Amino acid sequence: MKIGVVGTGFVGSTAAYTLAMQAVGSELVLVDHQPALAQAHGMDILHAVPFSHPVQIRSGDIADLHGAQLVVVAAGVNQQPGETRLALLQRNAAIFSALIPQIVQAAPDAVLIIATNPLDIMTHIATRIAVAAGLPASRVIGTGTMLDTARFRALLGEKLGIASESVHAYVLGEHGDSEVLVWSSVHIGGIPLADFAAARGIALDDTLRAAVDHGVRRAAYQIIQGKGATYFGIASAITALSRAVLFDERCVYTVSAMHSEVEGIPSVSLSLPGIIGRNGLTGTLKPVLNAAEHAALQTSASVILQHIQAMDAAA
Amino acid sequence: MKIGVVGTGFVGSTAAYTLAMQAVGSELVLVDHQPALAQAHGMDILHAVPFSHPVQIRSGDIADLHGAQLVVVAAGVNQQPGETRLALLQRNAAIFSALIPQIVQAAPDAVLIIATNPLDIMTHIATRIAVAAGLPASRVIGTGTMLDTARFRALLGEKLGIASESVHAYVLGEHGDSEVLVWSSVHIGGIPLADFAAARGIALDDTLRAAVDHGVRRAAYQIIQGKGATYFGIASAITALSRAVLFDERCVYTVSAMHSEVEGIPSVSLSLPGIIGRNGLTGTLKPVLNAAEHAALQTSASVILQHIQAMDAAA
Amino acid sequence: MKIGVVGTGFVGSTAAYTLAMQAVGSELVLVDHQPALAQAHGMDILHAVPFSHPVQIRSGDIADLHGAQLVVVAAGVNQQPGETRLALLQRNAAIFSALIPQIVQAAPDAVLIIATNPLDIMTHIATRIAVAAGLPASRVIGTGTMLDTARFRALLGEKLGIASESVHAYVLGEHGDSEVLVWSSVHIGGIPLADFAAARGIALDDTLRAAVDHGVRRAAYQIIQGKGATYFGIASAITALSRAVLFDERCVYTVSAMHSEVEGIPSVSLSLPGIIGRNGLTGTLKPVLNAAEHAALQTSASVILQHIQAMDAAA
Amino acid sequence: MKIGVVGTGFVGSTAAYTLAMQAVGSELVLVDHQPALAQAHGMDILHAVPFSHPVQIRSGDIADLHGAQLVVVAAGVNQQPGETRLALLQRNAAIFSALIPQIVQAAPDAVLIIATNPLDIMTHIATRIAVAAGLPASRVIGTGTMLDTARFRALLGEKLGIASESVHAYVLGEHGDSEVLVWSSVHIGGIPLADFAAARGIALDDTLRAAVDHGVRRAAYQIIQGKGATYFGIASAITALSRAVLFDERCVYTVSAMHSEVEGIPSVSLSLPGIIGRNGLTGTLKPVLNAAEHAALQTSASVILQHIQAMDAAA
Ligand SMILES: NC(=O)c1ccc[n+]([C@@H]2O[C@H](COP(=O)([O-])OP(=O)(O)OC[C@H]3O[C@@H](n4cnc5c(N)ncnc54)[C@H](O)[C@@H]3O)[C@@H](O)[C@H]2O)c1
Ligand SMILES: NC(=O)c1ccc[n+]([C@@H]2O[C@H](COP(=O)([O-])OP(=O)(O)OC[C@H]3O[C@@H](n4cnc5c(N)ncnc54)[C@H](O)[C@@H]3O)[C@@H](O)[C@H]2O)c1
Ligand SMILES: NC(=O)c1ccc[n+]([C@@H]2O[C@H](COP(=O)([O-])OP(=O)(O)OC[C@H]3O[C@@H](n4cnc5c(N)ncnc54)[C@H](O)[C@@H]3O)[C@@H](O)[C@H]2O)c1
Ligand SMILES: NC(=O)c1ccc[n+]([C@@H]2O[C@H](COP(=O)([O-])OP(=O)(O)OC[C@H]3O[C@@H](n4cnc5c(N)ncnc54)[C@H](O)[C@@H]3O)[C@@H](O)[C@H]2O)c1
Repeated sequence: MKIGVVGTGFVGSTAAYTLAMQAVGSELVLVDHQPALAQAHGMDILHAVPFSHPVQIRSGDIADLHGAQLVVVAAGVNQQPGETRLALLQRNAAIFSALIPQIVQAAPDAVLIIATNPLDIMTHIATRIAVAAGLPASRVIGTGTMLDTARFRALLGEKLGIASESVHAYVLGEHGDSEVLVWSSVHIGGIPLADFAAARGIALDDTLRAAVDHGVRRAAYQIIQGKGATYFGIASAITALSRAVLFDERCVYTVSAMHSEVEGIPSVSLSLPGIIGRNGLTGTLKPVLNAAEHAALQTSASVILQHIQAMDAAA
Repeated sequence: MKIGVVGTGFVGSTAAYTLAMQAVGSELVLVDHQPALAQAHGMDILHAVPFSHPVQIRSGDIADLHGAQLVVVAAGVNQQPGETRLALLQRNAAIFSALIPQIVQAAPDAVLIIATNPLDIMTHIATRIAVAAGLPASRVIGTGTMLDTARFRALLGEKLGIASESVHAYVLGEHGDSEVLVWSSVHIGGIPLADFAAARGIALDDTLRAAVDHGVRRAAYQIIQGKGATYFGIASAITALSRAVLFDERCVYTVSAMHSEVEGIPSVSLSLPGIIGRNGLTGTLKPVLNAAEHAALQTSASVILQHIQAMDAAA
Repeated sequence: MKIGVVGTGFVGSTAAYTLAMQAVGSELVLVDHQPALAQAHGMDILHAVPFSHPVQIRSGDIADLHGAQLVVVAAGVNQQPGETRLALLQRNAAIFSALIPQIVQAAPDAVLIIATNPLDIMTHIATRIAVAAGLPASRVIGTGTMLDTARFRALLGEKLGIASESVHAYVLGEHGDSEVLVWSSVHIGGIPLADFAAARGIALDDTLRAAVDHGVRRAAYQIIQGKGATYFGIASAITALSRAVLFDERCVYTVSAMHSEVEGIPSVSLSLPGIIGRNGLTGTLKPVLNAAEHAALQTSASVILQHIQAMDAAA
Repeated sequence: MKIGVVGTGFVGSTAAYTLAMQAVGSELVLVDHQPALAQAHGMDILHAVPFSHPVQIRSGDIADLHGAQLVVVAAGVNQQPGETRLALLQRNAAIFSALIPQIVQAAPDAVLIIATNPLDIMTHIATRIAVAAGLPASRVIGTGTMLDTARFRALLGEKLGIASESVHAYVLGEHGDSEVLVWSSVHIGGIPLADFAAARGIALDDTLRAAVDHGVRRAAYQIIQGKGATYFGIASAITALSRAVLFDERCVYTVSAMHSEVEGIPSVSLSLPGIIGRNGLTGTLKPVLNAAEHAALQTSASVILQHIQAMDAAA
C-alpha cells in the first residue's frame, strides 16, 4: 500500500502526516517541485512515526511513485497580486498538464485524489488528462465538498448539541461559493431535522440557518484570514478518502467527479454522493432535492461549466 | 476513567477485551460471582495489553468498583431445562436486586450500562433499583437495540454493496422478537432507501425485505445455534456506548431506557434513539414512523409491559 | 488485503474479531471444518463492524482463500481422555498434512501464521509441508513465544509499576514448559532491570523472579483452569503479527520458525527474535544470553527436537 | 478530560489536531494572544472531527482552561534580527511569568506540558513559577528530548532496516546542541546494537554513527531550513505525553524536569528517562552510561546551568 503525495505545501504535508498517524498505507512518497520542502516534511513526519504505527516515509520525484496504489495531488500556485482568477487557473492547469501524465505513467494502477483549487475545475482537467493517458475516469476523484459536508455536520452538531457523527447532512455542487447545503434531507440519528428541532425546542429559524450556511460557506475565508490557509480539515478528508480506496470500503462521500450531465448541464465536474472503493468512484447517487435545491445545484453546475468554458476558450 | 464489568461470561469478558484494546478507559475491574473466571479473563486480557495502549486490568469484587465512572452489567443465568421464561426472569431479577444496590453504593457517580437479557425488562428492573438507591434514572442505559441496529445496517450494507458506515437505519422497541425495523426512514448516504434502490437497479421487493428482516430478527438465534452465544457484536456495542459516556460524545444510539409513555403505553423500558453523554442518557428522540411502524412499536411496548406486569404480579 | 483464518475456535474467531476491529486487512474469510461455526462467528463479527472501520467478512472453504496475502491457521483438535501427547500430535499433524497444501494452493502468495499447539512442532510440520508445496520457508511463521513475551512484559510491568510498553523483555525457545525468560537483557526504558530495581528500591530477589517466572510459564494453565481456553492475548499477538506482515513493518517479534541450528541442535523450530515484513520472516536475531540462558535454550531446543523425532519415528 | 493548549502557532495547533484525531481527551480549548489565530485553528480542527471520534473544540482565553486536567504550553516569540539569545530568552521568560500563574489559577489540578524553546530553560522557569503558584514540581513536564529520542530511533531504524518501534534508544540532557545520544545502551529487539550490527553485517563505524548523530542533532536545523519550523514530530510527542498523563499510563519517556542534581551539577532542568502518569512525572530513572556519556551529560547540564545563571543574573 504505497501512497504518493504530490505537492507538499500545507495541505499535502498535513495529509501525509495524517495518513502516517492513522496508518493508512505502509509507504509514503512525498513529491514537490521544491524538493527541499518535501524532504523537510518527510523528516518531520518520520520523527512522528515512533509514536504511531511503523510506516515508511521518503521524498522523491514523480518516478518514485512507481507502484503507488494512490496518489494525492495537492500541488498548486497561489494568486499573485493583480492576477485574475482565470490567469491563476491557467497556471494551475499548466501544472496539471505537466504533472498528471507523469503520475499516470509512474503509477498506472493508482487512484488519483485531487485537492488543488479551484477543486472542480482542477478535477475536470485532471480527469481529461488522466483519461487521455489511459486511466479510467472513475479513478480520478476530487475531494469536492467532503470538507464542506464535514463543516455542515460539525456546525449543525454544535448548534444542536449532538456529535457530528450522528448528524447526517450533505453539501453538493461546487466546492466554492455556489455550493448547495441540502437542508431538506438533514437527519439527526434517523430523525428529520425539523422534527428533531421541534421536539428539542430548538428554533430552526432563518437566523440559525443563515448562521450555519454562512459558517459552512465562509469557513475557508474565515480560516484563511485567521491563519493563512486551511489544512487540518482537508487533510482528514483526504485521509478518509484514501482509506476508503485502499481498504475498498465502499463508503459514500460527497466527492467531485466528471459527470456527463447534472441538472441538465452537460459534462461538468462537481460533487454528488459517490461510492468509493478500490477502483475509485464506483457509483454516483442521485440526490433527492427540493425545488430550490435542484435550482441551486443547476446554478452551481452552470458556474463550473462557465469556468471550464472560459478556460477552454483561453487555451 | 475507571470502568467496572460485572458478570464476565462471554459478553462481559469480550466487552472488557474490546474496551482494553480500544483504550476506552484507563482502568478495568472485572467482577463475577465466579471469581476464578473473572481472574482468568483479567489475566488473558492483560496479556493483550502490550500489543495495545497501556490499560490497568484486575479482577475484584463489587467494592473494588469504588470510583468507577462506568459499570457494565452483563451478569446473568441461563435457562434451565423445563424452566419457564418467567422463572428465568425472576432468577435474573433476584440477581439484580442484590447486585445493583451494591454497585450504586460502590460507584455512586457511575453510569450503568445493562446488557443482561431479557434486556428491556432487566433495564427496567435495574432502573427501578438504581433510582431507589439514589441514582438518577438517566444514568441507567440498556444496550437495547444497538446490536439490532448494527445488524440492520450491516445486512443492508451487504445487500446494497455499501459500507454499513454509510447506511443509516434504526431498530427500535424491544431487544427481542417484537422489535421494529424502521424501514421508512432508511437512508443511504443521504438518499432515501427507495430512491437509492431504484437508481441502482436493486429490487427492493418483499423477498429482500423479508431476508433482511429475518437476518436481523433471527440473528441471535442463528449465531447461538452455530456457536452457543453471541458476544462480538454486543461487545463492540458496549464499547461504543462506553466511549460515548466517558468522552461525553453526545452520539445518538438506540438504547433502552425507562420511558413514562411510549405510543400510549405507560411506564415501559425499550429502545428509542437517545443522546448519550457523560451523564448517561441526556435526551430521547421521538422517531418519525409510518402507521405500520407506530402500530408495531406500540405492540412491542405492550409485549414488554406484559412481561413487567407478569413479573410484578409474581413478586 | 485479504486475510484468511482457518480454524475458527476460540483463538481463530477472537483473532478475526481483533483483525476486524483494528482494521488490519480489508477482507476476512473464516474457514472451519465445522462450517456452521465459522458462519456464526462471521455473523457475530459482522455485527461489530458498524462500530469500527468497514471490513468485509464472510465464511467459506479453503478455495475461498484465493488471493489472500495472509492466512492464520488456528485449526486443531483437543486431547481426548486417555490420549497420549504423541497421539494428539499425530492427529494435529494429520490435519496439517491435509490443510496446508490446500492453503498454499489457494493462496500461493500468502504468509502463513501458525497458532495451533504444540506450537513449535506444528510450525515445523507446517513449514515442511509448505516448502514441499512451493512456499519459501520464510513465509511460515509460528506465533511462538510472542504471547509469553507479552506475559513477561505485562507481569514485570505490574510488579515494577511501569507500563508494559516501556518494559523490554523477551521469552525465547519453546512455546511451552521449557521456554526461556531472558532475564539478563531485561531493560526498563533503557535501564537494565537490576539498575532500575536498585534505584527504585525494588527487591529483585528470587521470590519476585520466581513469581514472574511462574506467572509467565504457568499463565496458560491458570487461564485454562479459570475459563477453559486462552484467546484474548493470543488474538492480539496474531493481530500484531498480521499487521507487521501486511504493512511490511519490519518489527522484531519472538516468533517460531525453522532454524537450521540453535545452540548446536540441528533443524528445529522455536522462537528467536525475528524481523517481520511483507515476505514473512526476513531475518533472525541471535540473542545475547548468559551461560544459564544458553543452556536453557539448548535444553528447550532439545525438547522440541525430541518431539519432532518421536513424531517422525511414529510416522 | 479537558485539555488546554496555550500558544497555537505551528506546534500548538498541530498538537491540538493530533490530540483531536487520536481522541486523547474529550474537550480541547485553544488559547493564543492572537485570538483570531486560535479561533481559526479551532475551526479548522473542528472540520476534521467528523472524520474521527467526537471531541469538543473551542478557542478561548486562559480563564476557559478552568477544570483542565492538562495544559500544553507552546507559546513563544521568535528571534528578531540582531537579537541575542539571552534577549530572546528574556522575552519568553517574561511571557511565562505572566502566563503560568494564570494557567495554574485557572486549572490548579492540571499537569503542564512545556514545549516552548529553549526547552529546558523554559521548563525550569515554568517549574519555578508553577511551584510558587502552588503546583507540585512533578506536575510540570518539558517535552525535552522526546523528539530527539524519536529522531534517534527513526534514523537508526532506517539505517538498520528495522521498525523504529523495535529500536530502543534514548537521547538525554539538553533539548539542543549539547544533547547526549546514549549509544552504549541501544538495543534492537533485545539485542545490543553492536551484536545486532555484527550479526547483520552492518558496519557500525564512525561514518554511520556520525551520520546518525548529525541527523539527530541537526534535524531541527535541516527541517527549519526546508519548511520554516518543525511541528509534526513534536505534535506527536506532545500527544503521546498527554495520553500518558490522562490515561495514567506510567510509560517511560525522556522528558525535561527540574532535578536537584545531575552529574554533580545542582538544580538544573534537563531530560532523563521519567515515568509519566496521572500526576505528571512520578519517578526519574538514573541512566546507565559509559564514561564519555557521563561526561557529555555533565557538559550538557553545565550548559543549561550557565543559561539559567545568565538569565537570573540579567533579571
Ligand atoms: N479541496 C479542498 O477542500 C481544499 C482545502 C484547502 C486547500 N485546498 C487547495 O489545496 C492546494 C494546496 O494548498 P496549500 O495550502 O497546501 O498550498 P501551498 O502553496 O502551501 O502548497 C502548494 C505546493 O504545491 C507545490 N507545487 C507547485 N507546483 C508544483 C509542481 N509542478 N509539482 C509539484 N509540486 C508543485 C508547491 O511547491 C507547494 O509546496 C491549493 O490549491 C488550495 O487551494 C483545497
Ligand atoms: N443486550 C444484548 O444485545 C445481548 C447480546 C448477547 C448477550 N446478552 C445477554 O448478556 C448476558 C450475559 O451473556 P453471556 O453470554 O456472557 O452469559 P454467561 O453465562 O457466559 O455469563 C454470565 C456471567 O454472569 C455471572 N453471574 C451470574 N450471577 C452473577 C452475580 N450475582 N454477580 C456477578 N456475576 C454473576 C456468571 O458467573 C457468568 O460468568 C445474558 O443475559 C445474555 O442473554 C445480551
Ligand atoms: N500459540 C499460542 O500462543 C496459543 C494460545 C492459545 C491457544 N493456542 C492453540 O490454538 C489452537 C486453537 O485453540 P482454540 O482454543 O481455538 O481451540 P478450539 O478447539 O476452540 O478451535 C479449534 C478449531 O479448529 C477447527 N478444526 C479442526 N480441524 C480442522 C480442519 N481440518 N480444518 C479446519 N478447521 C479445523 C475445529 O472445528 C475448531 O473450531 C489450539 O491448538 C490451541 O492449543 C495457541
Ligand atoms: N520542544 C520541542 O521539541 C520543540 C519542537 C519544535 C518547536 N518548539 C518550540 O515551540 C514553540 C512554538 O513554536 P511554533 O513553531 O509553534 O512557533 P509560533 O511562533 O508559530 O507559535 C507561537 C505562538 O505563541 C503565541 N504566543 C506568544 N505569546 C503568547 C502569550 N503570552 N500567550 C499566548 N500565546 C502566545 C503566538 O501568538 C504564536 O501563535 C517555540 O518556542 C519553538 O521553538 C519546541
